Amino acid sequence: MEKRTHNCGELRKKDVGKEVVLNGWVDRIRDLGGIKFVLLRDRYGYTQVVFNPEDKELYEKALSLSPEYVISIRGKVMERPQDAVNPKMPTGEIEVHAVSLSILSESQTPPIYVNIDDESSEELRLKYRYLDLRRPKMQRNLILRHKVVQAIRRFLNNLDFLEIETPVLTKSTPEGARDFLVPSRLKPGKFYALPQSPQLFKQLLMVAGLDRYYQIVKCYRDEDFRADRQPEFTQVDLEMSFVDEEDVFEVVEGMLKAALEEATGIELPDKFDRMTYDEAIDQYGSDRPDRRYGMELHDITDIFKSTGFRVISSSIETGGVVRAFKIQGLASRFTRKLIDQYTELAKSQGLGGLIWIKIENELKSSILKFCGEEVQSVAERLGAMNGDIIFVAVGERELVSKALGKVREKVIAEELPVAEGIDILWITEFPMFSFNEEEKRIEAEHHPFTMPDLNDLSRYKDTNPLKIKSRAYDLVINGYEIGSGSVRIHRQDIQNEIFKLIGLSDEEANKKFGFLLEAFKYGPPPHAGIALGLDRLVAILAGANSIRDVIAFPKTASGSDPMTGAPSEVSQQQLKELKLMLMDGRGE
Amino acid sequence: MEKRTHNCGELRKKDVGKEVVLNGWVDRIRDLGGIKFVLLRDRYGYTQVVFNPEDKELYEKALSLSPEYVISIRGKVMERPQDAVNPKMPTGEIEVHAVSLSILSESQTPPIYVNIDDESSEELRLKYRYLDLRRPKMQRNLILRHKVVQAIRRFLNNLDFLEIETPVLTKSTPEGARDFLVPSRLKPGKFYALPQSPQLFKQLLMVAGLDRYYQIVKCYRDEDFRADRQPEFTQVDLEMSFVDEEDVFEVVEGMLKAALEEATGIELPDKFDRMTYDEAIDQYGSDRPDRRYGMELHDITDIFKSTGFRVISSSIETGGVVRAFKIQGLASRFTRKLIDQYTELAKSQGLGGLIWIKIENELKSSILKFCGEEVQSVAERLGAMNGDIIFVAVGERELVSKALGKVREKVIAEELPVAEGIDILWITEFPMFSFNEEEKRIEAEHHPFTMPDLNDLSRYKDTNPLKIKSRAYDLVINGYEIGSGSVRIHRQDIQNEIFKLIGLSDEEANKKFGFLLEAFKYGPPPHAGIALGLDRLVAILAGANSIRDVIAFPKTASGSDPMTGAPSEVSQQQLKELKLMLMDGRGE
Repeated sequence: MEKRTHNCGELRKKDVGKEVVLNGWVDRIRDLGGIKFVLLRDRYGYTQVVFNPEDKELYEKALSLSPEYVISIRGKVMERPQDAVNPKMPTGEIEVHAVSLSILSESQTPPIYVNIDDESSEELRLKYRYLDLRRPKMQRNLILRHKVVQAIRRFLNNLDFLEIETPVLTKSTPEGARDFLVPSRLKPGKFYALPQSPQLFKQLLMVAGLDRYYQIVKCYRDEDFRADRQPEFTQVDLEMSFVDEEDVFEVVEGMLKAALEEATGIELPDKFDRMTYDEAIDQYGSDRPDRRYGMELHDITDIFKSTGFRVISSSIETGGVVRAFKIQGLASRFTRKLIDQYTELAKSQGLGGLIWIKIENELKSSILKFCGEEVQSVAERLGAMNGDIIFVAVGERELVSKALGKVREKVIAEELPVAEGIDILWITEFPMFSFNEEEKRIEAEHHPFTMPDLNDLSRYKDTNPLKIKSRAYDLVINGYEIGSGSVRIHRQDIQNEIFKLIGLSDEEANKKFGFLLEAFKYGPPPHAGIALGLDRLVAILAGANSIRDVIAFPKTASGSDPMTGAPSEVSQQQLKELKLMLMDGRGE
Repeated sequence: MEKRTHNCGELRKKDVGKEVVLNGWVDRIRDLGGIKFVLLRDRYGYTQVVFNPEDKELYEKALSLSPEYVISIRGKVMERPQDAVNPKMPTGEIEVHAVSLSILSESQTPPIYVNIDDESSEELRLKYRYLDLRRPKMQRNLILRHKVVQAIRRFLNNLDFLEIETPVLTKSTPEGARDFLVPSRLKPGKFYALPQSPQLFKQLLMVAGLDRYYQIVKCYRDEDFRADRQPEFTQVDLEMSFVDEEDVFEVVEGMLKAALEEATGIELPDKFDRMTYDEAIDQYGSDRPDRRYGMELHDITDIFKSTGFRVISSSIETGGVVRAFKIQGLASRFTRKLIDQYTELAKSQGLGGLIWIKIENELKSSILKFCGEEVQSVAERLGAMNGDIIFVAVGERELVSKALGKVREKVIAEELPVAEGIDILWITEFPMFSFNEEEKRIEAEHHPFTMPDLNDLSRYKDTNPLKIKSRAYDLVINGYEIGSGSVRIHRQDIQNEIFKLIGLSDEEANKKFGFLLEAFKYGPPPHAGIALGLDRLVAILAGANSIRDVIAFPKTASGSDPMTGAPSEVSQQQLKELKLMLMDGRGE
């Protein structure tokens, strides 16, 4: 093999006259007037290589080439004739006239396209992932991911953060999602668990005085895969001592600003917007609003204060509200059939129904005949123009807001073109607890190590713990919860109060988190942190539809890998060593 | 909490007069003439804080402090009196006179020492790892590791390497060590395996045209832990396309040179020494020689060519050799009892015995009375001086060399002080195959994707495959195999030859490595790579005895974590979901 002097993306007009060696893949072959033009491809780009029939032996050899052959060529860089210059190709002003060729390896016809956007089934793309990854778009995604990761590291290193690895073979904790388990052979009957996050370890690193920790780390959740989740996913995980939320915000803002500018050229504001949880629910009906689409919720209860329409007035009398949002220009899209679909969604969210108001040359509404005047006022209040549609809902304030939020999200997902740009904001002051309807008990909304608002704690703990706010925060980008974190509890008295409120006995608490509680007896510092979902962040930046497009070797929705065949059966011997039996009788 | 204006390691004489806030741990408390001196500690260093009895309220509060309390103090930076300056402390010229104090959290008496080298049992240190990690020595180790890792990344990034994550939930391959298994819940009866290395994936990334890959990645081996191994360990893994071994050497040499200079100040040569496998066995009896200790093996067969001592002459007549090495100055240490131990070792390695020659004012030897003249010649040939001892062995050349190699290693480990400095070298031209005595078959010495020497392959494949050399290489530092890699096979015909030689049928090969073989049908580029053991590398640089001292949360020798209690029992529900039963009947 002759080693390359240049890669396939770097030759320019200034190189004309040089003798070069290029290595790469045959991307495509054209025959023009008896001359063979081979487009040679590698990670760095494309270069056109010319085989002239005058060199008969070489030309014969070139005739044997097929797409995806790996070759090494030596040749002379020549300026392309004026009419052959390709301004879209960085190397488009030159071509290399081959003087020798060696075939490094051959290729069968690939089962998926490499040099055009392949619309093959994802199953096939994953089975031949090594071919799928040859596509420039996929390579750009992985390169973007690499750049984002390196920029994040550089930024954190400069702020005295230490990258520290935490264990992958760790202890199963029956909190949160389902653990992946790893049977222990040396201790039969016992299991390790793969970490859902390094949460406890990073808090212990703070107790250890390491001050500032980060890790770009795989985490694992054995969920029923849906909604573009992966059983293994990557987090940018960090934790800091002697800080509060403002310090975490400052670090993350600087970090993402640096990473985005460096990797994508996108400029972010120095400070991200902030919205409390209550504000977000009020304005968008969601704690992860995508504000690029506008469509804020408006309170229009006052308009209906003295309505004669009983459905609404009776709700208002019992403390209900009327809220609405406007969708510009989609009145005609919302046929009766489509509105019915949205009404079903609204009902599934606990609403009695969904009221609509359209302006299609004239005012139309599902309640026009009951309260025409109020409908007119709503249209005016929301500044509706011809072609707009408004959805209105009635009932308990939070229920109405959240239900309209779902309606709004469906509109964004299904009726509107994808918005441009980046909308990034912090959501703060989350509720400390939520009520688990199934189990009829209070549970921690974030996790039980989150610091509550201490004023709220003393005010509401005995009367209405659900009113207690926490010092948890989320980072939301384009409607996705990209990050989640909190100031942590570092005082045992507060931790005990929280465990009591979620009904965790001392014994249970000790069984689950004993080593963390033990650690907190020996001078834990105040600390706070956050974890960001790297896969989704990169997918947003890459404009990818799925996180699978920014992961080199992802799993399918059922958690399998069509390429390697994982998961797969294992031998009797392996099961026997682990002292395990399968329930269908194998392994006995 | 008042936030720190400075950390505990940064105040200097130039800061005298400033009012500062420090946060940290109470390292120790001294009382001198009624004044309280508190040494405050954080990751960055120590600062002395002074509490004067004149401020009564503050002083009273200071009286309640104990070691490992976390406090925040505000105070004024003052120059220390001349006689109180501590030149060993970076902050030793100043002290901070406290004006306020707040206790952020309290501490019980720690069960292990934090501020001195703790000689507690390792079990206890691991149970309270968060306290163990407070010790400055442990923090230095983790900081060193961080620096090494960042320097490696920076170097590789600059050379166009892409950091790409490979899967952790992957397929079990019955090659190499034992896999850790992860039962699949969605596909009951099937298992993922944790990767022993990303070998196949990194080769697939080369097939995918990603050109240069690296990853600092956890790998997993379910071995019987001994000899300072960990079930999860970290590799610096890299792979390159269109290269040969020289390119890999150049990258690794540059990378380690950069990392060591940046993280430790140690300068490495631009090019590392190289030794073939045969040379290393010949000179040191080992393929991972630590040359800092000298003690090369010498061939002294010629001296015994016409000896009358039958034990030796009969061996020489049947093709045997006589080899020896000298240990300076340890003649008197090697008592009869100690020599007996070494003789046992030699016998366990297949030697008939171990001959010794000492100079203790006079020439002494176990064979002096059989061949005194030859003994004299050996002493002269090896330049033995008064006080030296020589070990001599007789037999088949490779057996003798390797057995003396073991003897030499035991001498290094048990009789000599630890050598200074770094000895780094490449071992090349490893045998392609070795003979598995138990299973009476030929197996791949490195792995079956290693490119053989093609001349050797055609010359010996039918007659003596064990003579075939491979294009595998190891990087050896201070007697440890730190890195291992090879040029890979990228041609199917060669791959098939190798599978045939190790007795792998097409069917078996397909079952084990089918997806790699399939990938190689579509234009794989020539490629080569290496993986380096990061834990051991950092341990060597840190001067640590065990890799456990450079891992934040390591496991014990039995694979457990005394802190979290992993591995642990899991619930019936978890087992049921996985359709698993334990062989002792649990889970039924």
